[in-house]
Amino acid sequence: MPTETLTADSLTIGTHTLASRLIVGTGKYSTYEQMGESLAASGTDCITVAIRRERLIDAEGNNLLDFIDTSRYTLLPNTAGCFNADDAVRVAKLGREILLGIENPGADWVKLECLADTRTLLPDPVATIDATERLVADGFQVLVYTSDDPIVARRLKEAGAASVMPAGSPIGSGQGVLNPNNIRICLEYLKEGDPDYPVIVDAGVGGASDVAAAMELGVDGVLLNTAVAHAADPVLMAEAMQHGIKAGRKSYLAGRIPKKLYATASSPEEGAITARPR
Amino acid sequence: MPTETLTADSLTIGTHTLASRLIVGTGKYSTYEQMGESLAASGTDCITVAIRRERLIDAEGNNLLDFIDTSRYTLLPNTAGCFNADDAVRVAKLGREILLGIENPGADWVKLECLADTRTLLPDPVATIDATERLVADGFQVLVYTSDDPIVARRLKEAGAASVMPAGSPIGSGQGVLNPNNIRICLEYLKEGDPDYPVIVDAGVGGASDVAAAMELGVDGVLLNTAVAHAADPVLMAEAMQHGIKAGRKSYLAGRIPKKLYATASSPEEGAITARPR
Amino acid sequence: MPTETLTADSLTIGTHTLASRLIVGTGKYSTYEQMGESLAASGTDCITVAIRRERLIDAEGNNLLDFIDTSRYTLLPNTAGCFNADDAVRVAKLGREILLGIENPGADWVKLECLADTRTLLPDPVATIDATERLVADGFQVLVYTSDDPIVARRLKEAGAASVMPAGSPIGSGQGVLNPNNIRICLEYLKEGDPDYPVIVDAGVGGASDVAAAMELGVDGVLLNTAVAHAADPVLMAEAMQHGIKAGRKSYLAGRIPKKLYATASSPEEGAITARPR
Amino acid sequence: MPTETLTADSLTIGTHTLASRLIVGTGKYSTYEQMGESLAASGTDCITVAIRRERLIDAEGNNLLDFIDTSRYTLLPNTAGCFNADDAVRVAKLGREILLGIENPGADWVKLECLADTRTLLPDPVATIDATERLVADGFQVLVYTSDDPIVARRLKEAGAASVMPAGSPIGSGQGVLNPNNIRICLEYLKEGDPDYPVIVDAGVGGASDVAAAMELGVDGVLLNTAVAHAADPVLMAEAMQHGIKAGRKSYLAGRIPKKLYATASSPEEGAITARPR
Repeated sequence: MPTETLTADSLTIGTHTLASRLIVGTGKYSTYEQMGESLAASGTDCITVAIRRERLIDAEGNNLLDFIDTSRYTLLPNTAGCFNADDAVRVAKLGREILLGIENPGADWVKLECLADTRTLLPDPVATIDATERLVADGFQVLVYTSDDPIVARRLKEAGAASVMPAGSPIGSGQGVLNPNNIRICLEYLKEGDPDYPVIVDAGVGGASDVAAAMELGVDGVLLNTAVAHAADPVLMAEAMQHGIKAGRKSYLAGRIPKKLYATASSPEEGAITARPR
Repeated sequence: MPTETLTADSLTIGTHTLASRLIVGTGKYSTYEQMGESLAASGTDCITVAIRRERLIDAEGNNLLDFIDTSRYTLLPNTAGCFNADDAVRVAKLGREILLGIENPGADWVKLECLADTRTLLPDPVATIDATERLVADGFQVLVYTSDDPIVARRLKEAGAASVMPAGSPIGSGQGVLNPNNIRICLEYLKEGDPDYPVIVDAGVGGASDVAAAMELGVDGVLLNTAVAHAADPVLMAEAMQHGIKAGRKSYLAGRIPKKLYATASSPEEGAITARPR
Repeated sequence: MPTETLTADSLTIGTHTLASRLIVGTGKYSTYEQMGESLAASGTDCITVAIRRERLIDAEGNNLLDFIDTSRYTLLPNTAGCFNADDAVRVAKLGREILLGIENPGADWVKLECLADTRTLLPDPVATIDATERLVADGFQVLVYTSDDPIVARRLKEAGAASVMPAGSPIGSGQGVLNPNNIRICLEYLKEGDPDYPVIVDAGVGGASDVAAAMELGVDGVLLNTAVAHAADPVLMAEAMQHGIKAGRKSYLAGRIPKKLYATASSPEEGAITARPR
Repeated sequence: MPTETLTADSLTIGTHTLASRLIVGTGKYSTYEQMGESLAASGTDCITVAIRRERLIDAEGNNLLDFIDTSRYTLLPNTAGCFNADDAVRVAKLGREILLGIENPGADWVKLECLADTRTLLPDPVATIDATERLVADGFQVLVYTSDDPIVARRLKEAGAASVMPAGSPIGSGQGVLNPNNIRICLEYLKEGDPDYPVIVDAGVGGASDVAAAMELGVDGVLLNTAVAHAADPVLMAEAMQHGIKAGRKSYLAGRIPKKLYATASSPEEGAITARPR
């Protein structure tokens, strides 16, 4: 591969700066070894870890954190499995204590998930806003998982979130960004007068083209888990995702050609049949 | 970047084997320097060159071939600008002579374009079949540009084409693969009992996500030109495309998760509201 | 036209029963005459009227209600132009008084719009939930405009809404239903154990095919305004919408054929190339 | 329903003028009674009948034509089941003889199907062009089924076809118009300087919204069969299709509002985040 022109295109979220724009989850892998290889293959330098005890410690009593090279990855604790604001706040604080205990720099931030339903794993907007306000007041840098509703996204930024992370589609659904229009309005709201505010698509991607397409919308990063962990070959899919995030970021920055009916049509409108007979 | 697991995933077309699955055109760049940098940044080892004199020699009398490092790239001569079978066959033979004259290994193959219309640059199916038969009879390895019509694609393989290259959308339109259904049927026909037969999406891609999405359908490569040459930053877009082709190829091989309404729906059908009241 | 088999497919919302599943707005027409003709052509028997004084009374002092045949249409007062819960509740009560004053049966219900932003006219989920609870407590039958967020939709039903009305896309955007996946989850939530609960797509449709496609998802009705009022020929578009709503409703009830790669593929999956080489 | 403004919007194809823009096939119904009711419910006045003996005469020796009210419908004989030009020409002539024998006005036209493959039922472009030329030379008014390839469509018009009928998607696939871009280019070619030339989408529709969406592209009619015959309730689906064709036609003529990111965005471009950072 030739030397890349974009040598330092890091992503800054609050006080953290990441070399990769891909954040990867640590759940749902068959083995810790598979997880470790997949994380390495993804090129990420930030991984998110569920804090709830039943997710952190497995049936054999193994602690997930013992299988992660914390010199290599910034840990982003998350509140997966929390279904109300109180629970999410409590778990976030527990995560902070755990990470402080091991002197991990990830102690000062949290990925907030405040879910409404075990069936769909969709976020609860009202509880999410509430929990964001409380965690911000408590000094956390909050990266908040939310739906693609632009008004809720704006409200979460106003509540002090360090990053708003709209879902492309439901967690684990593999459908990619179902509503680019909403992501565009989210970007318009969140980056108005604040172009560096980080917006991350969290959840829903299936293949690497979904990651690239999300990045081409102008978001700053993508967070994923199932798409890699449940792929037929997770390590190979992790490599795919590494390329997908770079493909989409560079494609966005490089400025793509406009879409036309055909090349010599000077605009899609010109090329199209008029909507109404003359 | 970690060592990649897929170290040798080369693409074989007839007697040629390519390290990269991306083939890049040499037209429409602002300068030869920009062309050279873009080709290098794309990671390709196969570039396609128009043979018609007015395309090979510019207004100042410069010959395009003088600006290409032929030790680095396999040349794939093409018949761009030909609007009937006679013309395409004549230009293909001219290309062979020119490349034989410089002892270039690209002399034995050709990218056949036999167009029907200067406005849309859509291919002429009947003339394309005719020219393919004649060029195959004359010993060429023919890589043939065609529409996404699966029957025409099958006919071209029967005519002896070394690779069938359906368009994702019209040349230069930047719309990506508009009809994945047709590409899937093309793959079903062309790879039936012959899984290694090379199928390449030629034309129509705009951003790197389009390249990744095309590869995720299971095609063997992508050929593009305008998407890089006319991007706001061609060299950066070329890098994006290099990642896009790897992202899509690996994502295809890695086996993506199925699409569902939400993760715990055991199938999209189960999750969906029934189409009819009980 | 032959006698239709579906002679009585009325829509019941709270205590109101409507013959047509299309609800039409009264704003944005060039003239009152054009409005009247369009409403008649749409086949609707329920029209929604903005209550805020500046919308009800025009610059010449004309009252919109004087131009509506209230023997023909059930009036559905709405709180368009309200940007917080207090304002929406106040305007809803004002509407009730006005309609009680003219002894109109529409006095007991309201279409609640509680918007967040004058630019996008997107609804404010938190204020909308608040206003719904207050209006329900005050005895209103509340038909509530909301985003397509399924969790907010479920919360609004729990708050006592007589109908939840998710937007297909932003008001006046003409994009139809951008995220059918979300509408499907809304239907799953809202009709669980309660199949007759009325769900209406409110806002976003552009052409009659958008209305038909929305109804084919299984929603119970469509509410629109701009798509007719701002069409080049509003009266003709109103006719189109009448057919669109019937087309989509009947198509949904009639049970469409499954989508396949081609007809003899026994499933889309069977016909598709496998996602991964054998 | 109010009196419709568009009282006479007939469709003229060659010497035939049809009141309905929907043409319906007669195959695949469970019973002749179901077929008869469905045809009536569809509002069509033109039905297409397969001429090959095994399709015309059933196992009990019943002749399909005995079950059709030929005073009500114009018959359009078709060459379904023909897989080469010779066969198609022979069957077309047989159809002419049969219809002449019963003095049916449908004797002078034919729907040409010249298929390439029993599995996908996709048309063979080369044989279709050949058969069109031969049938036109023999005095037929040819309505020709073809793929959505715009160049083939143009060639068929040049060959003298009375109507070109591109497929929306494969026969019986229920996917609607998969590539509106190609249909738009077909319309541009076929109606250039000849706005009344009839273009009909033949094959692929599933629900009534597909019919409406096809008509909104500006085509002149839709021909379908499986979508009605194989619906769970064919008669109800036929009604849906009658509304779908009117919805789409009127919506096209009425001039829909433009699509925008949100209503106050003066154009989709303005509302969208720029593709490249400033």
